[in-house]
Amino acid sequence: MADKITGIDVKILKLLAKNARLTYKELAEILGTTRQRISRRMDRLERNGIIKKYTIIPDYDALGYIHVILGITIRPSVDIDKVIELLKEDENVKVIERALGSHNLVVHIVGPKDMKEMEKIISNVSRKIPGIDKLDITFVTEIVKFEVL
Amino acid sequence: MADKITGIDVKILKLLAKNARLTYKELAEILGTTRQRISRRMDRLERNGIIKKYTIIPDYDALGYIHVILGITIRPSVDIDKVIELLKEDENVKVIERALGSHNLVVHIVGPKDMKEMEKIISNVSRKIPGIDKLDITFVTEIVKFEVL
Repeated sequence: MADKITGIDVKILKLLAKNARLTYKELAEILGTTRQRISRRMDRLERNGIIKKYTIIPDYDALGYIHVILGITIRPSVDIDKVIELLKEDENVKVIERALGSHNLVVHIVGPKDMKEMEKIISNVSRKIPGIDKLDITFVTEIVKFEVL
Repeated sequence: MADKITGIDVKILKLLAKNARLTYKELAEILGTTRQRISRRMDRLERNGIIKKYTIIPDYDALGYIHVILGITIRPSVDIDKVIELLKEDENVKVIERALGSHNLVVHIVGPKDMKEMEKIISNVSRKIPGIDKLDITFVTEIVKFEVL
């Protein structure tokens, strides 16, 4: 983690944020350098955890899914690490973020387009979290913009 | 958009969600089919907008950034489309999602690790949104889990 991020790293990250499928060759051509250098930098960025994942942003709606964000405020006395360990195993829970502010835990659920079923999934997830002070439930209906860097 | 999603499409999407850099060759080998077929299906998934983007999940903290989620509730009388058009142009606004529930607009901001600067960016974004009933500000401190499908 202590390795320094250089200018070329930032350029690579910005290009991959726009298109994670760019090949070493394409990246090397755009940035005027060699494939070997690109491959070396990317290996390092992956090892350091600067790149946590190469993934896709899908259209959940078209795939028949509902995407729900739970903004959770947990009482200070609760051990969030223990809660996270429980939630991690839940296959409906796709994203878990620790946070600070209005919510101290953000959980994303992806489930079927069946509100009765979704209600069960959401209450099942909520029951795993003791000491909820506030729970904001938000259904994402459309991704209008999605940039990363 | 009317094209049907088939079993092979779902398998391709799940693999790309885990690693968007898998080549046609690798996908073909895993799924026991041909590169041509993989390439054809992926082209279609991109054209249909089922795959909205191939991207990376970066460690914002390690890059010197702060990631903030604004959960916004706008009064029903406000034209959200107009608000979105304004927000889209803002380079600090990385993600815009229309929503239903606790919030009807979710906005992600990525900015520098300077709370004074972040305060300016957030109030600048908020000022573009008329009729805010409620604004939840959440600072993401750590991504614990990030799966897509």
